[in-house]
Amino acid sequence: MKCLGALPLAIAFGAFAWAQAADDSKPATTNLPGAEYPRVHSDLRVTFRVSIPNAKSVQLMPGGNDNGLGKGPFDMVRDEKGVWTLTLPPAVPGFHYYWLLVDGFPANDPNTQTFFGWNKECSGIEIPDKSLDFYDVKDVPHGDVRMHWYYSKTTQSWRRIFVYTPPDYDRNVKARYPVLYLQHGSGENETSWTKQGRANFILDNLIAEKKAVPMIVVMENGMVASKPGAVQESQEGRPARRNAAFPEVVVNDLIPMIDSTYRTLTDREHRAIAGLSMGAGQAVQIGLANLDKFAYIGSFSGGGARNADLNVEELKKKLRLFWMGAGTVEMSRLGGGKAMVEKLKNAGVNAVWFEAPGTSHEWQTWRKCLYDFAPRLFKK
Amino acid sequence: MKCLGALPLAIAFGAFAWAQAADDSKPATTNLPGAEYPRVHSDLRVTFRVSIPNAKSVQLMPGGNDNGLGKGPFDMVRDEKGVWTLTLPPAVPGFHYYWLLVDGFPANDPNTQTFFGWNKECSGIEIPDKSLDFYDVKDVPHGDVRMHWYYSKTTQSWRRIFVYTPPDYDRNVKARYPVLYLQHGSGENETSWTKQGRANFILDNLIAEKKAVPMIVVMENGMVASKPGAVQESQEGRPARRNAAFPEVVVNDLIPMIDSTYRTLTDREHRAIAGLSMGAGQAVQIGLANLDKFAYIGSFSGGGARNADLNVEELKKKLRLFWMGAGTVEMSRLGGGKAMVEKLKNAGVNAVWFEAPGTSHEWQTWRKCLYDFAPRLFKK
Repeated sequence: MKCLGALPLAIAFGAFAWAQAADDSKPATTNLPGAEYPRVHSDLRVTFRVSIPNAKSVQLMPGGNDNGLGKGPFDMVRDEKGVWTLTLPPAVPGFHYYWLLVDGFPANDPNTQTFFGWNKECSGIEIPDKSLDFYDVKDVPHGDVRMHWYYSKTTQSWRRIFVYTPPDYDRNVKARYPVLYLQHGSGENETSWTKQGRANFILDNLIAEKKAVPMIVVMENGMVASKPGAVQESQEGRPARRNAAFPEVVVNDLIPMIDSTYRTLTDREHRAIAGLSMGAGQAVQIGLANLDKFAYIGSFSGGGARNADLNVEELKKKLRLFWMGAGTVEMSRLGGGKAMVEKLKNAGVNAVWFEAPGTSHEWQTWRKCLYDFAPRLFKK
Repeated sequence: MKCLGALPLAIAFGAFAWAQAADDSKPATTNLPGAEYPRVHSDLRVTFRVSIPNAKSVQLMPGGNDNGLGKGPFDMVRDEKGVWTLTLPPAVPGFHYYWLLVDGFPANDPNTQTFFGWNKECSGIEIPDKSLDFYDVKDVPHGDVRMHWYYSKTTQSWRRIFVYTPPDYDRNVKARYPVLYLQHGSGENETSWTKQGRANFILDNLIAEKKAVPMIVVMENGMVASKPGAVQESQEGRPARRNAAFPEVVVNDLIPMIDSTYRTLTDREHRAIAGLSMGAGQAVQIGLANLDKFAYIGSFSGGGARNADLNVEELKKKLRLFWMGAGTVEMSRLGGGKAMVEKLKNAGVNAVWFEAPGTSHEWQTWRKCLYDFAPRLFKK
């Protein structure tokens, strides 16, 4: 009480109450070690703060219109020392990309980790969801996430992939496991499903609760330009698709390498493919074109297949699961999948439609998708 | 030739020759996919370019005075559209941290990957060394680098480590391996030895050439604040050391977990500890204090031990190797290690001094240190 000794008691208590209210906030878990900002309040308001004395304008820009921080840019407010502050209204729980606009220049928040998204190293913030813990690090056995390098004949280059091996993989040295191939979205890469998506913790928790069978999860970089020397495919003047070579990489290089490197079950009944957004399109395209290799297909926040590509009789015979899902907030754009699932179900295909409550085209939706999808895989 | 049709031939050829000269440079391997800048010229000059139309001043700042890009800040030059360019004189080969100063604000180069260093997500550039290929990705068997999570009783938190398992680890399921504990420098973390240091490729290449025995390499985050609830140690008014709890983490939590999780050889003759800079100090401190656990100690660009800590008779008996090294460019600061190694050698300890030619307090020195140190480990 030393420094408050000269103040009237009422003011002292007022200051104390204010300090308590301020203490309500905590540094985001995505901050750099020791960084006090950004801070998340208990009502999920978020306060950002950064010192940029010479800037005339600093704004905060969430990544995309669907972002759970809101639709930016948001003006930050300068104090006399050049420290800029912004408190946003309660955010949607989950992971959100953002960056600063410093006099218009897109710069990262110096206080946060970077995450590969939007084709760049991007700031991000995790907003906790008190009602969910399925993607938390819990006191359960944890699988390793391995960085593995292999040579792709298709791209004529060494490629790095991330491979989740389940907790018992190193102990049960004779056991063989089914494999889920799991793809990120446009502008992301092989790191995204574990760093932003927490796929490994989701699987750890599902396996510990015996809700999902132990499985290997393979995460590649789907942003594969056309093959070296290949004629660029271009339709009606549009630029060639940046991921044009990916199906060949998966079928000709990746699957054979995984099956000869890890202890996998190599039949189609033990192989699944899923992805989000752009990766959803890749999963549906690669899965339907290779029903001799995949029995499970998952589309997270993606379009469906064209009717012309659907041979319903073949799907009935070969597909163990055709799964589609999206966030309720993005349904106006992605509701077509629901109709497609209905049609497939009516035709006798085992199809599932899922809606992630309250979230949009963001990682929280895709975490929830994986949490619903993975337990449906590889069960007799 | 369509667009050059109206030009005199001499000018057309002049333009062609200029284009050829410009083609001499290549995008740095550390750039984001598709980013054309920064570019490295064949004589190792480097051209940086970034569009920041509203800035009054943009400078490039290498990380530290010893940086192989030179001693900054360097002014970039603005064109009429607000694109800023800088070409630096030939750089020292290796990996160099840097950032931009945009009207004084430290921002990353939007064209490059980020690397954890200087306590932040930091831009970096790889300058090739045509005379060396020991850290390249070659057509040899590759070990995996595993992200592994474990609970530390010391820090009362889940910690992530990186673990290199050698190429044959998954095939020789009964083999057990020696372990090298390998630490980064101040302001870096568990990702640095593989991302900046390319430790996994160095080991892959050494093992393929049978120069080093297959070993497991464990990389932890040495920036461990004091334990929760512990009284902060503070000497003569200096702030508590940020890594004060690290020795306890290694001895009480990390080593027992590694030995029960991976197929290790658990005796002291098959355990080594090394590190760079701050990590060199940690390796020497932890190694000398735990000679029942370590038979090999490596100090890369670090200080030695205090004479008072050296029980030469015990070292003669127990240490298989005391290794110290530094870059020739940083010898004025770190030459003391050489004298210490001489003293230990004269006293009968197997001590080695190494100098990395032409490099300073940077990753190129530490790559060369590892390349000399690792082959000396775990041999009869």
